[in-house]
This record gives sequence, C-alpha cells and structure tokens, in this order.
Amino acid sequence: MSKTENTAGLAGVTAGKTAICTVGKKGVGLTYRGYLIEDLAAKAEFEEVAYLMLYGELPTQSQLSDYKKRLAGMRGLPDGVKTALEVLPRDTHPMDVMRTGASVLGTIEQENDAEKQQNDVADRLLASFPSMLMYWYHFVESGKRIDVDTDDDKIGAHFLHLLHGEKPSEDAIKCMSTSLILYAEHEFNASTFTSRVITATLSDFYSAVTGAIGALRGPLHGGANEKAMELIQTFKDPDDAEAGLKKMLENKEKIMGFGHRVYKKEDPRNGIIKEWSKRLAGDDPYKQNLYAISERLEQVMLDEKGMFPNADFYHATAYHFLGIPTQLFTPIFVISRLTGWGAHIFEQRADNRLIRPNAEYVGPEVRDFRPIDQRGA
Amino acid sequence: MSKTENTAGLAGVTAGKTAICTVGKKGVGLTYRGYLIEDLAAKAEFEEVAYLMLYGELPTQSQLSDYKKRLAGMRGLPDGVKTALEVLPRDTHPMDVMRTGASVLGTIEQENDAEKQQNDVADRLLASFPSMLMYWYHFVESGKRIDVDTDDDKIGAHFLHLLHGEKPSEDAIKCMSTSLILYAEHEFNASTFTSRVITATLSDFYSAVTGAIGALRGPLHGGANEKAMELIQTFKDPDDAEAGLKKMLENKEKIMGFGHRVYKKEDPRNGIIKEWSKRLAGDDPYKQNLYAISERLEQVMLDEKGMFPNADFYHATAYHFLGIPTQLFTPIFVISRLTGWGAHIFEQRADNRLIRPNAEYVGPEVRDFRPIDQRGA
Repeated sequence: MSKTENTAGLAGVTAGKTAICTVGKKGVGLTYRGYLIEDLAAKAEFEEVAYLMLYGELPTQSQLSDYKKRLAGMRGLPDGVKTALEVLPRDTHPMDVMRTGASVLGTIEQENDAEKQQNDVADRLLASFPSMLMYWYHFVESGKRIDVDTDDDKIGAHFLHLLHGEKPSEDAIKCMSTSLILYAEHEFNASTFTSRVITATLSDFYSAVTGAIGALRGPLHGGANEKAMELIQTFKDPDDAEAGLKKMLENKEKIMGFGHRVYKKEDPRNGIIKEWSKRLAGDDPYKQNLYAISERLEQVMLDEKGMFPNADFYHATAYHFLGIPTQLFTPIFVISRLTGWGAHIFEQRADNRLIRPNAEYVGPEVRDFRPIDQRGA
Repeated sequence: MSKTENTAGLAGVTAGKTAICTVGKKGVGLTYRGYLIEDLAAKAEFEEVAYLMLYGELPTQSQLSDYKKRLAGMRGLPDGVKTALEVLPRDTHPMDVMRTGASVLGTIEQENDAEKQQNDVADRLLASFPSMLMYWYHFVESGKRIDVDTDDDKIGAHFLHLLHGEKPSEDAIKCMSTSLILYAEHEFNASTFTSRVITATLSDFYSAVTGAIGALRGPLHGGANEKAMELIQTFKDPDDAEAGLKKMLENKEKIMGFGHRVYKKEDPRNGIIKEWSKRLAGDDPYKQNLYAISERLEQVMLDEKGMFPNADFYHATAYHFLGIPTQLFTPIFVISRLTGWGAHIFEQRADNRLIRPNAEYVGPEVRDFRPIDQRGA
C-alpha cells in the first residue's frame, strides 16, 4: 500500500489536538471534557451539557438557570429569516432549511469580532434552530406563520411543543434531553472537521456551521437514523425483518445504523437510547412491534456480520415514538451537535493553523496545449 | 516534535489522490489536467478552462460554442432566490450573499440524483453566481431589481456588464477571462478540501459549494486580495509605501498577498496577472501610482523577507482598475473556483471514502460527575 492508500479518508491520521472529547479510548467509550457519556446522559440535562461544551465547565445551579433563561430569550426569528424560510419549497430537505437559515441569520446578526461575539452567536443559533425548523415546517405544511416563542425552559421541550402544538410529556422531554446529550459531540467527525477546516481560514462562525450542516446532511454521516427508520418501517414483523435483512446482506446492500469508523466493539450511546426506545414503546402494540423489529435486526447484524448498532439505530424508533417525522431527525442532530461544533470552532480559533493537506497526483503528465482551432470542429 | 505537531494543519499530509491539478511540482508550477497555467492563461478563454475542469477535456470549437450558449441560458434567477437575496442587509459580506444564494438555489433546483444532475448543477451555479451577486448588489445599492440577462457570451463580460451597466471593453473582458482561469483550481486548498470533506458524506453539490464558499471567505484564504488592496490604498506613493511597509514588518504585522504554503520560490500566476495590472494602468496617473506602489511593496518584501507575491497581490490592482469594488473581489474568486470545486466534487464521488481523521486528546482525564445540587449555587 502506498502512503496515500493508508491515508485515504484520513483514517488513522491525527489532524490536530483537542481537549473536548475522547472517542473509543479503551475503557471509556465517550467523554465530553472528561465526563463519561453515561454520567451525562443519566444525571445531566442537555442545557448543562451545552454549557459544558460552549463555556468549558459544568454550570452551577444559578449559572444553569441563567443560561436557560438566556437561551429562552433568543428564540425569536428576524423578519428577514422568516421571509427567506418562506421561499424554501415544501419538498426541501429540512437540512437545507437549517443550512439556509444559518446562512441568512449570519447576514442579519453578523459575527464581526470573533472573540467578543462567538459565544453569543453559538447561543443564538442553539436557541433559534428549533424555531427556524418549525417555522418553515408549519409554513409549508399548513401555510401558518407560527409564533416560535413558548414558555418551555428546555430546548427539547421547545422543539416538541412547536412541532405538536402542545406541551410535551415529561418522558418526552427527558428523552429529547438525553438524545441531544448523546449527539452533542464526537471529536473529529466529518461535520466537526468541516467546521474546523472552514474556521482555520479565519472565516466566521456561521460559515463554519453552514458547512458543517452540509456535511452532516450526507447519508454516511447524520442521515443514518433517517435511513434506519426507513428500513425498519419496510418490515411487517420481526420474522419478516430477519428474512428481509438477510436478503439485503446477500445483495451486499449497506445497512445504515450499524458499525462505526472509530468504535470497534460497541457504541456507548447505543444502550442508552435503546432503553429510551423501549420505554417510549410502552404497551402500544404498533410501537412494540417496531421495537421488536429493531431488536431482531440488531441480532441478525450481530450474528451475520458481527456488527453492532451505533447511536443512530435506536434513535430512529425513539424519535418515531415521539411523533417526530422522519425527515426531521437529522435537523435535531444539528441542534445538538451545534454545541460540539461551537466548542471545536472556539478551540480551533484559540490555536489556529490553516488546514491544507496535499494530494497525490495521478493525472496526465504535462501535455501540449493545442489552440482551439487545431482541435477539430 | 510529536506526531501531531508534524501534522497540525495537515501540512505535508497526503489526504487523497487527484487527477485534476499539480501545484508546485518542480519545473511545472501549476497545471490543470496536465496543461500548464501559462498556456491556459495565454491561449484559452475561461469557458474553455471551465469545460476542461467540469467535463475532463478541452472542448472542440463547436463544444465550446454550445457550452457558452448553454451557460448564457442559465443566468436567470428563480423568484425565491431573488426574494431571499433581498432580505440580506446592505452591510452583508458579499461572500455571505454567495453562500446564501447557493444554499437557497439548492432548495429550489435540488440535486437529488448526483450522477444525472451534477454537471447541470455545476453549470447552473457557474452561470448564475454573477447574477446572484449583481442582483443583490444593485438592490442594496440603489433599490433597483436588475434584469440579470445580457447578451454577453462570456462569464467575465456578463459580470462586468451587470456591474457597470454597460458593455465592457475588450481588454477588460480579456483580463477577467485570464483572472478567472488563474483562480479556477489549486488542488487541496482549504475551500476545495472543505468541499471534498462534505461530499464524502454523500451530501449534495450545493452543500459542498456552500461550505467551500464559507472557507474561501476567510482572510487566510480567498480574502487576501481584498486585504492587499486595502494595504496598497493606505499609501500615497512608492516611497511612502516602502517606509510604511518597513514599519509594519518591524511590528511583525502579517502582509497579505505574499508567500504560499506550497510554492516556495514563486507563484506562477503572479507574473501573468502582474502584466495585466500594468496594462490596465495604462497612462492614467492615478493607476500608475497604485501600480508603482505595488511594485515597491513587492521589492521591499523580497529584500526584507525574501517573500514573493502570490496570485492575490496584483489581482488587487487589476480588479481595482476594472472598476470592481474591493468587497466583490472574493466573490469573483467563487465564480472561478466553482469549476475547480466541481471537478473535485465529481472526483470525490467517483471513488468515495468518508474523510474522518483522528485527534490527539489533550484534555482532562476522566473525572467524576458531581450532580448540579453538589456544585454550589
């Protein structure tokens, strides 16, 4: 293997330092600033984790309470953003709504002084992403221009409230909070790496986030939980799922929601969200069947391929049980991961170097230029 | 030095293969698909080079003629794009106009089948970027909603015509064509690399371009010619420039438009655009003075720092002599580089692997989570 084959996709290449996250270190599957994901998911709420990511340490009680008030006060959308969202057609990929919303907000509330403004911009995007998504969603679904302010004090609750038009249950709020924690950060994944490459040119926060959304949009990255849901819904029961999946594996089809470039044995987020999926299924036969299908798919993937579910797989049913339309799954990922992107953007800025790799040239040797009148008709 | 220090910024790291471009190879400074930049700049027009980048080979006369007609037919803007552009405030960074315009167009004219649509999308963006920029520019400058169609058969002419409201001179058209050729492609630079990282998640063309624009926006990348112009304009004559520059160097200020991560001795694009800057200055005393200031800055940088001008430095005065406002310099870079980005997006898709490097962790060890009620008030 040549050097390039080794480094294709930069697999195993160290692209820089980070103090934010460990992924797949022996014994500690995933940590945010030194805290185990299991602790954070069980004992913290998402806003605590957002504060940890964006301000460096866990908040005290009064800091958290102030932070939640601050975020709740930043949910409104400028008229320009609303107008721009209204031109996006109904069949727009909701990730493109997020991408466009971030881009437009960045022109109306510009970041002109990174050091002074970057935390405000991060908080503003975190608070207003659910508003953007839901404003557009209801506008194209029903033509209604919704009021994006609610009195919910949590981001997940705000989102669900805007989506369903009513206050969500305590379980729904807790599940959303846990889910947002699980997706908040994951080291140099493709979207975060994108945000760092953009930031390293000393561009603005919005540009970095706009690019990161574009990366997260891809089915090999953030789109996996949507694909998992689509797969699960094609089967009528667990036996049908087993037969169908085996056929897909025979045909060498790629199954989304399994395996991971970094984790080799298990994804530490999987057990946590799986438990939520089961709990939300409750005793509803429709939901129980989807959960049972998921479990069977997990078993077959393990038996046939030795592959384990990653964070995306049981997120599919968990979100579905919360009544979230499948095409909105990845935008929720944006709301959560904005906190990780933000932490990485700040970190890149604090010790910046342009990110500019080389390529191995495999194209034509230098060739003579024939002017156009000598190239035939 | 640790491994990470070696690879910070991925300097010297090979991140993949490309058949599109060589940069800084001994004896051949810059080639596009095997053709020397000197040949392309002297003997081709920009649309030939765009075709070379996006379709793989130089066009025949009839292919070129068809291609120019095709592009000329793709300049119009959908109403949704116009509406979105109109909400972007007058003090918006014009790169954010490009970023937003690309993002919105991507929702109205979606790329849902990469293989079938990618060339159409690339051509559409290439043809309509000048329209987006000029539509917004005149709207915020004068409130006028301009007609973006002209009968110019070249992209550079179309741009200048929309900017000035009159047909540009032959020299102006030729200079724009040359400039667009020089900026078209440059291997794994930060914006192109961004577009490949995004593409590698199997996201869409618009997402890749939106991210690339965000990267090119940064002053360490595409913004350098704007900074060079601002610098040149601060001096009243060559002697003033020499004294001022020396003072800046004493203060260790960064001078934009000089040096390059990859080129070590000279930037092969510099001589070409320098000649154009001189030619456009003509016998106009104001322009001659700015040109003389530029030459003196070049000399001082060589004497004092051993540094050479890169492509950006004489682009500053060349664009200025064409009557282009400084804040529009980097968006022109977008129009040109879209062809390089497009070629790299196609290439990445043709042999894809997710781009996901590792990080060296330098953060806190695993620490105990103290619940919020044990963290003090």
